[in-house]
Amino acid sequence: MTTQLQYANRGIITPEMEQAALHDGVSPNWLCSQIAAGRCVIPKNRNRNIKARAIGDGLSTKINANIGTSGKHCSLKEELEKLKIATKYGADSIMDLSTGGNLYLNLSEILKHSQVMVGTVPIYTVVARKGELGQTDNFVFDPDELFAEIETQAKMGVDFMTLHCAVTTKSIRYFDVFERTTGIVSRGGSLVYRYIKTTGKENPLYEHYDKILEVCKKFDVTISLGDGLRPGSGTDANDPMQIDELLIQGELVQRARNKGVQVMVEGPGHMPLTQIEMNMKLMKRICDGAPLYVLGPLTTDAAAGYDHIAGAIGGAIAASCGANFLCYVTPAEHLCLPSIDDVKQGVIASRIAAHSADVAKGLPLAVLNDLKLSQARFNLDWEKMFDYMLEPELARKRKNESESNTDDYCTMCGELCAMKTFRETPN
Amino acid sequence: MTTQLQYANRGIITPEMEQAALHDGVSPNWLCSQIAAGRCVIPKNRNRNIKARAIGDGLSTKINANIGTSGKHCSLKEELEKLKIATKYGADSIMDLSTGGNLYLNLSEILKHSQVMVGTVPIYTVVARKGELGQTDNFVFDPDELFAEIETQAKMGVDFMTLHCAVTTKSIRYFDVFERTTGIVSRGGSLVYRYIKTTGKENPLYEHYDKILEVCKKFDVTISLGDGLRPGSGTDANDPMQIDELLIQGELVQRARNKGVQVMVEGPGHMPLTQIEMNMKLMKRICDGAPLYVLGPLTTDAAAGYDHIAGAIGGAIAASCGANFLCYVTPAEHLCLPSIDDVKQGVIASRIAAHSADVAKGLPLAVLNDLKLSQARFNLDWEKMFDYMLEPELARKRKNESESNTDDYCTMCGELCAMKTFRETPN
Repeated sequence: MTTQLQYANRGIITPEMEQAALHDGVSPNWLCSQIAAGRCVIPKNRNRNIKARAIGDGLSTKINANIGTSGKHCSLKEELEKLKIATKYGADSIMDLSTGGNLYLNLSEILKHSQVMVGTVPIYTVVARKGELGQTDNFVFDPDELFAEIETQAKMGVDFMTLHCAVTTKSIRYFDVFERTTGIVSRGGSLVYRYIKTTGKENPLYEHYDKILEVCKKFDVTISLGDGLRPGSGTDANDPMQIDELLIQGELVQRARNKGVQVMVEGPGHMPLTQIEMNMKLMKRICDGAPLYVLGPLTTDAAAGYDHIAGAIGGAIAASCGANFLCYVTPAEHLCLPSIDDVKQGVIASRIAAHSADVAKGLPLAVLNDLKLSQARFNLDWEKMFDYMLEPELARKRKNESESNTDDYCTMCGELCAMKTFRETPN
Repeated sequence: MTTQLQYANRGIITPEMEQAALHDGVSPNWLCSQIAAGRCVIPKNRNRNIKARAIGDGLSTKINANIGTSGKHCSLKEELEKLKIATKYGADSIMDLSTGGNLYLNLSEILKHSQVMVGTVPIYTVVARKGELGQTDNFVFDPDELFAEIETQAKMGVDFMTLHCAVTTKSIRYFDVFERTTGIVSRGGSLVYRYIKTTGKENPLYEHYDKILEVCKKFDVTISLGDGLRPGSGTDANDPMQIDELLIQGELVQRARNKGVQVMVEGPGHMPLTQIEMNMKLMKRICDGAPLYVLGPLTTDAAAGYDHIAGAIGGAIAASCGANFLCYVTPAEHLCLPSIDDVKQGVIASRIAAHSADVAKGLPLAVLNDLKLSQARFNLDWEKMFDYMLEPELARKRKNESESNTDDYCTMCGELCAMKTFRETPN
């Protein structure tokens, strides 16, 4: 036995389950049964030595920060700094999406320095390497190279991998029937689409899914079923292509579980906010309660420069009704590779979204945190308030730099502080 | 006849209705009937010459920016700069909440320079003036001074006023029965509470509401019924005090309408995100479809320094199910008086929330904006994209300063741009 799912299936509580359960304030027994049912996962490669964290229903919402070089902006040093910042501000995992520079070196260094889960998208590596070799003419990947890359990265210790297995001849067929505003906006999705269209063959990640399962089982790599056909604009949300891919994701969840491989499912994308609840419930239903990992969703297409805010709106709603893992969106989204400060802003916005959802769902640790903070607020006890803030650094700085730095009230209301007026009114 | 409601009741379409209808792409006839029903208002003092904007169901969500001095941070010049910035980035109205310096001068200057609606909270002025005179011992206001202040500000041209008429002996009675984490967090609410507790008398704003209605009718000042007992923490949300005050707000809506005075209703506050829809629907029901004006709601108590993001989450949800007017929340909330940059960030976050809700509700202008932007995005037509962004300045700057400033793709994906791969794949 190698995977957490295999252990859970036999009712064995692993040290990872103990550790993850403790972090979330749940019982290891309960977590074990959730993992056995496929409703929670612990993405942790058996070759890695990190703190185990679980993702799924009944647990706090986790957040991921994407980092990594691109062909046009490429500095390993900067990416390692982003890793540090992302972890400092509370990312539960990072994904190395590097497509520029020495990809093997990037990933090794990130794995070495990361104290949190590390995810990748192996198809990026394969295609980016082709680009480096000057084979950028068509980006059609070699399936054998892709399988070899998955195995290499599994051996290196990657904890979870986004694999676009569900973009198939079936699901892209609808492009002939329905119009889309923004086509395909997932890099992995577009590469599989090109492969199918150019070769006339089925997506090898789908066709040889069992081969992938063997590798993932061996190293306990959690599969993150990519949503290659996710909507890239509000008008494309919940269209037949997206839903047809979802059906295949559902099929692949079952097949992974049957082989003892941990699996989660990726979701959108761009989506009007009133469609998010429906989509999350549909995803949960079709994927039989699997953990959901969403990118955003962005509730408007028009917030470039401030997409972390649109992503926080969508992410909070999604996490309150099904999503378990939020991929951050940074202010750089749609514009450029994120800077170090973008990473910080993206992580903080995602944590606000995740925590807002956890409070709404009544998760005891989240509710207690806000209660303690509010009690401190009513007592005008600033040091205690800072203790319970999601990011106390900036709050402390602003209070201390204001004209009321030594007052118990702040410069917003001054002496007219409402809580003070209320408290000091004789009953 | 002086008020838009009086004209609407007789089916007369005013120039203000024409102008507001044009702005929102609706028919003046329809808007007139909405105003007559009390479901929309046009806050515009008859002594003011500004562009008329309507607030209510079926219209785009409007946003307000609070500005104004406080005793501890007091510069008229800075507040006028905030007014400029708030308007530049899209605030539909501003409220002068000044409590420091020369209050009469502050308000005159703001009224003079503002091209958008101006709101106030007259009780602040009365109590702040007491403070200036050294009478800060108990903050118990003089009812006659308050009525005089309302009349003065109405004459000066204030378009809407927050009046905490619904904090009554009845609604504060529940403080003896139920516990609250943060007591009263509305300045106006706490002042009325102190008045009632100290004098043993009823809230004069409730008792002499008809007197207020006469003044508001004379100048067509829209009443914004303050929510003095709004929750200041997630645990206090939707408690008996809040709901009891809401019932009185509902009563006062009817009484205002019967006198031909335009009225809107203020709402929370701090609220777990899954309670927002219920609260908005209850408010709409009790207040018979009156326009709702909300502050936030903040979906966590723990986001100080980044409360504009928590406010955007709550505001977007609220506006998608009832709220018509969002009061911005800035990054300075709970910490200090907002700076000029805070005002900018607050306005932008609120616009993202408002626009996200408008897209979700299917308002044609909002949906079309995002569609056009996404079409431009798919065509990698950057100049056109910028045209449709909520705030193009920063987006343009970031793209232009990146290594891909002359490319059609961006540095996020480089040559691996998914939309490019999709578009350039032969079918």
